Amino acid sequence: MLIKKESQSLSNYGSLICSDNCYTINSTLSISYSLTIEKEVFKPGNDKLANLCPSKRALIVIDKSVWDIYKDEILQYFASHDILIDFVIMECGEKNKSLDATLDILNRMESFGVLRRSEPVIAIGGGVLLDVVGFASSMYRRGIPYIRVPTTLMAMIDATLGIKTGINYLERRNRLGAYYAPHSAIIDTSFLKTVDKREISNGAGEIFKLAVVKDAELFDLLDKHGKKLLDNKFQKNEEIVSNVINLSIKGMLDELIYNMWELELQRLVDFGHSFSPLIEMKSLPIFLHGEAVALDVVLSCAISNVRGCLSDEDLLRVIKVASDLSLPWTHPLFRDEELIYEALSDTVLHRNGSQNLPLPVTIGNSKFVNNVDKKQIKKATQILEKLSSHHMEIY
Amino acid sequence: MLIKKESQSLSNYGSLICSDNCYTINSTLSISYSLTIEKEVFKPGNDKLANLCPSKRALIVIDKSVWDIYKDEILQYFASHDILIDFVIMECGEKNKSLDATLDILNRMESFGVLRRSEPVIAIGGGVLLDVVGFASSMYRRGIPYIRVPTTLMAMIDATLGIKTGINYLERRNRLGAYYAPHSAIIDTSFLKTVDKREISNGAGEIFKLAVVKDAELFDLLDKHGKKLLDNKFQKNEEIVSNVINLSIKGMLDELIYNMWELELQRLVDFGHSFSPLIEMKSLPIFLHGEAVALDVVLSCAISNVRGCLSDEDLLRVIKVASDLSLPWTHPLFRDEELIYEALSDTVLHRNGSQNLPLPVTIGNSKFVNNVDKKQIKKATQILEKLSSHHMEIY
Ligand SMILES: NC(=O)c1ccc[n+]([C@@H]2O[C@H](COP(=O)([O-])OP(=O)(O)OC[C@H]3O[C@@H](n4cnc5c(N)ncnc54)[C@H](O)[C@@H]3O)[C@@H](O)[C@H]2O)c1
Ligand SMILES: NC(=O)c1ccc[n+]([C@@H]2O[C@H](COP(=O)([O-])OP(=O)(O)OC[C@H]3O[C@@H](n4cnc5c(N)ncnc54)[C@H](O)[C@@H]3O)[C@@H](O)[C@H]2O)c1
Repeated sequence: MLIKKESQSLSNYGSLICSDNCYTINSTLSISYSLTIEKEVFKPGNDKLANLCPSKRALIVIDKSVWDIYKDEILQYFASHDILIDFVIMECGEKNKSLDATLDILNRMESFGVLRRSEPVIAIGGGVLLDVVGFASSMYRRGIPYIRVPTTLMAMIDATLGIKTGINYLERRNRLGAYYAPHSAIIDTSFLKTVDKREISNGAGEIFKLAVVKDAELFDLLDKHGKKLLDNKFQKNEEIVSNVINLSIKGMLDELIYNMWELELQRLVDFGHSFSPLIEMKSLPIFLHGEAVALDVVLSCAISNVRGCLSDEDLLRVIKVASDLSLPWTHPLFRDEELIYEALSDTVLHRNGSQNLPLPVTIGNSKFVNNVDKKQIKKATQILEKLSSHHMEIY
Repeated sequence: MLIKKESQSLSNYGSLICSDNCYTINSTLSISYSLTIEKEVFKPGNDKLANLCPSKRALIVIDKSVWDIYKDEILQYFASHDILIDFVIMECGEKNKSLDATLDILNRMESFGVLRRSEPVIAIGGGVLLDVVGFASSMYRRGIPYIRVPTTLMAMIDATLGIKTGINYLERRNRLGAYYAPHSAIIDTSFLKTVDKREISNGAGEIFKLAVVKDAELFDLLDKHGKKLLDNKFQKNEEIVSNVINLSIKGMLDELIYNMWELELQRLVDFGHSFSPLIEMKSLPIFLHGEAVALDVVLSCAISNVRGCLSDEDLLRVIKVASDLSLPWTHPLFRDEELIYEALSDTVLHRNGSQNLPLPVTIGNSKFVNNVDKKQIKKATQILEKLSSHHMEIY
């Protein structure tokens, strides 16, 4: 038996195998969602978001910082489209990525009486807010639709693209969560004009990672325009902004698309996450995630250089671009060979016993390796030590 | 691009469509799990469950009543297989199907240090326990494997088969939950020997429903052997027990298999759930779920009879079998035409505006109808009124 049933953008195939006292269930869920890059999503004339609220009612969950800045514009938008709205205003930042925040949202879903299939919740904010709203939406009545409107660079080029949702729990990052696709996402870079410059650098850290590990064209754009993009908060040079954002999104999606549920543990997007998880936790004042990623990228490049792969010139270009993006590229913790080795062992544990380390061979081309050793790490830290004594440390 | 990645019993296909500033992500998750009917799962010589613990460690979540009765046997089983175990003993019953119970389990998953992919949590208990453990497993690290060992009839022929998990929240049944497949399930009917007779009747309510709506063979078996099965708690007449259990499981799976994520709202398994949800909530002392289902089945049959479909003889047979299974078949609340009509309107709301009412035409054959009206309901209650004055009311 092979039967298909469809509803909206989901569909389900199934087959049942029966033998003596044993039943095997095979079933398939297909999901589909779209990401649109859109200018000025809350301009009254822009119908995009309003059209996604056919019931003319919507529950909106919004980051408090975004609310404080954009509330008039947003209220006016929904009023002009005759959409009855209710707001959950959420304090964000990593410490609010919590069970309490999740329950707050669930309680408001209940009191608003969100319909199960046809009344998407609208999430407006950074990665923290999107992850929490996604998690709450995944579990309310076993899943209701939600729309992502990312407002930070990190959210636009990363958190909004895949189906991961989650919260921190028992002091562990993303300890609870679900793989749960959004109904759709609308990416509007004009929100970046009000984001702190350091937060934009933070998002740029993930773009930087992607460029180094797999996209020479994107790297060249960052090399030529990175500093300007950051200084202008992605609000000028429309064509370059569009190229960088599109290459980042496309590059990230190409990696995600066949690994939405993270069944595969060898992943290029893990570049920059080889040493950083442990060291990020030990840093004080704490690094932002994208900053730790940038430090990891540069260390990985130095290791590749030690192994005779990445050229000196490429290593220096990588460092130059990190600087342009106001990202730290060297730091005492990332030159502590014992700590780095401990961080690597930790990662090996999480990758089912192998290093599976993506290392760039040239800028934009990488391979996975499994034999990085202490000696190479030591030499890499020495290179970084030497380079950093020539440069001013940024962080 | 169409790529497949596999890991264990899950696999993921994906494709990405890019057009101007718009990306469409299509992705497919395939799940696979098996249900095995097994005798004496905790007999030391039975390797089935032990083989599912390759790391020789397991976290077990178990219903307190089951623990009290079977603890020696279970401890001995794992000891004899050299499996290091830790137990979460959970008080069950509907009021413990809660967020608190879920968090308890999550905290114990963390302190036990359950591995993410290769150390299935083992859930041993009735539907309440399986639903809570399934929900906790779905969210811990975005999903870890778990094994279901159902110990009530309701759990064996219903809760263990599909991928629904959930808890009650804000006084609403199953308000939070996830669609999350188990690693596998092992069904051992010998657990039924210690289950309260009323709880077995309760599970038999769902078998009765299935028989009336779609399986004349199963109905005949219940007609001939129902009373004996119940009296012996499914522990004698092995062949008949096996036939009844297998037909029930197969019949339920045939309905579930193409609707695992409940994308389709017109479902034969909703038979027995047309009027019961509202009335179940209003009943005092409260009906067990399978009892409310049985009352709904008989009412639906009476309505079908009024509409000139189901014969008088079939209606009487349905009532006889309900009695054999110690199920209530008539009750003042199910003869209150105003309440019944209200219950139907409620259900229409939940089925996107249409009745979508499965009604048996003959025993084992049904069709969906959309035009049951007040007059038919009134006549049906009058028939039941008359019949109940001849019989003793069971409930
Ligand atoms: N689900 C995923 O796949 C995924 C991917 C990457 C990151 N993440 C998660 O995202 C989180 C980080 O996201 P983030 O970097 O966006 O942090 P964030 O959500 O904490 O936002 C950073 C800060 O910017 C503020 N802010 C947001 N939008 C603003 C705007 N337009 N103007 C002014 N201020 C604004 C916020 O209030 C916050 O103080 C982490 O928890 C991480 O785990 C998830
Ligand atoms: N997920 C699904 O698809 C699905 C399907 C049907 C029902 N359910 C859920 O299942 C729940 C009802 O399940 P249930 O009827 O099994 O109730 P239950 O889990 O509350 O068990 C009934 C009683 O039997 C006791 N018990 C369990 N096994 C025993 C044994 N072997 N010996 C002695 N006592 C035992 C329990 O402690 C409890 O007191 C409901 O919450 C319902 O929502 C879920």
